[in-house]
Amino acid sequence: MANSKFITSAANPIIKNIQLLQSKKNERKKQGLFIIEGIRSINEIPQEYEIDTIVMSDLFDESLLKVSATRNALLVPSELFKVISDTQTPQGVLALVKMKTLQLEDIEVKANGFYLMLENLQDPGNLGTIIRSAYGFGVDAIFLTKGCVDLYSPKTVRSTMGASLHVPVITDKSLEDYMAWAKGHGLTCFTTALDDTAKEVAKADLTKGLMLVIGNEGNGVSGEAIAKADQNVYIPMPGGLESLNASIAASICMYEVMRQRL
Amino acid sequence: MANSKFITSAANPIIKNIQLLQSKKNERKKQGLFIIEGIRSINEIPQEYEIDTIVMSDLFDESLLKVSATRNALLVPSELFKVISDTQTPQGVLALVKMKTLQLEDIEVKANGFYLMLENLQDPGNLGTIIRSAYGFGVDAIFLTKGCVDLYSPKTVRSTMGASLHVPVITDKSLEDYMAWAKGHGLTCFTTALDDTAKEVAKADLTKGLMLVIGNEGNGVSGEAIAKADQNVYIPMPGGLESLNASIAASICMYEVMRQRL
Repeated sequence: MANSKFITSAANPIIKNIQLLQSKKNERKKQGLFIIEGIRSINEIPQEYEIDTIVMSDLFDESLLKVSATRNALLVPSELFKVISDTQTPQGVLALVKMKTLQLEDIEVKANGFYLMLENLQDPGNLGTIIRSAYGFGVDAIFLTKGCVDLYSPKTVRSTMGASLHVPVITDKSLEDYMAWAKGHGLTCFTTALDDTAKEVAKADLTKGLMLVIGNEGNGVSGEAIAKADQNVYIPMPGGLESLNASIAASICMYEVMRQRL
Repeated sequence: MANSKFITSAANPIIKNIQLLQSKKNERKKQGLFIIEGIRSINEIPQEYEIDTIVMSDLFDESLLKVSATRNALLVPSELFKVISDTQTPQGVLALVKMKTLQLEDIEVKANGFYLMLENLQDPGNLGTIIRSAYGFGVDAIFLTKGCVDLYSPKTVRSTMGASLHVPVITDKSLEDYMAWAKGHGLTCFTTALDDTAKEVAKADLTKGLMLVIGNEGNGVSGEAIAKADQNVYIPMPGGLESLNASIAASICMYEVMRQRL
């Protein structure tokens, strides 16, 4: 690339900073940058996202890169690339990408909109998988409560496989904020909870504008969410299991919304 | 426990053997033993499985154990337990359990049965999650082709959270063996594949006896499976994603079978 710089020392401040961005949520937030690894994910970064820097191993075939208009490119020895990569078998390319921080006001409100709220989700792999399913099933926006795992952690970014750049995601607000927004816009709020009032998810009417609330892996949705929601739904399990994996339960509920609307 | 033995040396042959069982598929197969870790999973081992040995850390509270009739119990210092555990934060208890190797002839054939075949699935976490969903949705038996990841690897066992002991699982046969069995018993074979003949999964009739074939994470179902199957089905994704995570896609198809039959 035109302006590529070659760095060989692990003590170089740019290298040190990439390691910080890989490991520290606060640094990512402060600098407004996160890291995407792998050629396929980088090539699929939508145009509205700005790539700050591309870092390549000296063994990486640069012609595979389809992204252009990159200001900064860094070349490092493959041994040093292993040090800054978060994966066990790095492909030799990563991008520092500028975050786009959205507010609730930025979210387009559709009468038949389909919004997803995740309450205190803890596992980065689950978060990534859920975002990927949300993209597939046409979710209009995703809301993460303050207690959720970081959207920009390397493992989450890897699990979404780029999907998080295609669906608007709001972070760091409270359950009340999101609930008030949904109710203010006439959306019906559904929680996935098994109580006396819960309906089989396939028997609930999911064809109108709605917000679906998915709870934490260990504890499910909070009592507060259940109290504020309009309807509890559940996935029947005739076989006898107590609970499905959180990302499976969330994806099945999203599938059911999509199915009823097709 | 009555016959508990205290072992303090990492060089003890029993300790060495547990490490072999944790890490080597061939050893598990040869000895016919696999390992279940964690108090909840151990307490839920069904009676028809025989526990060979229980191993506890000296810090573990034995009164939490609900399984009885154990011939052998081993007590080890907590530091040594960490060495033989496959988890990062061990609960201090693991069980060596005898495998039950089933043959196709052992599987009960039901006219409206629901059978699941996994073709060359590679990720132990995916396999575990799929088995867990299969248990929830009432799958009658699971068939793993020879190329699948080991059913008894510690990560698979952990991801199933005990579900694999509740659903009959057959391993090590070929696609042809399972297909011939299914066709011989009048089951319809469905593959998840997106070709010209594929139907939306919700529009296929899944109420009669069937075998659902799920493919490998990277490549999907093989051409051979598609050629031999009766019907291809797909999960519509109006949002635009190329493919769902394999365990999500499998679970949604199983959910759809269950939904149509409820």
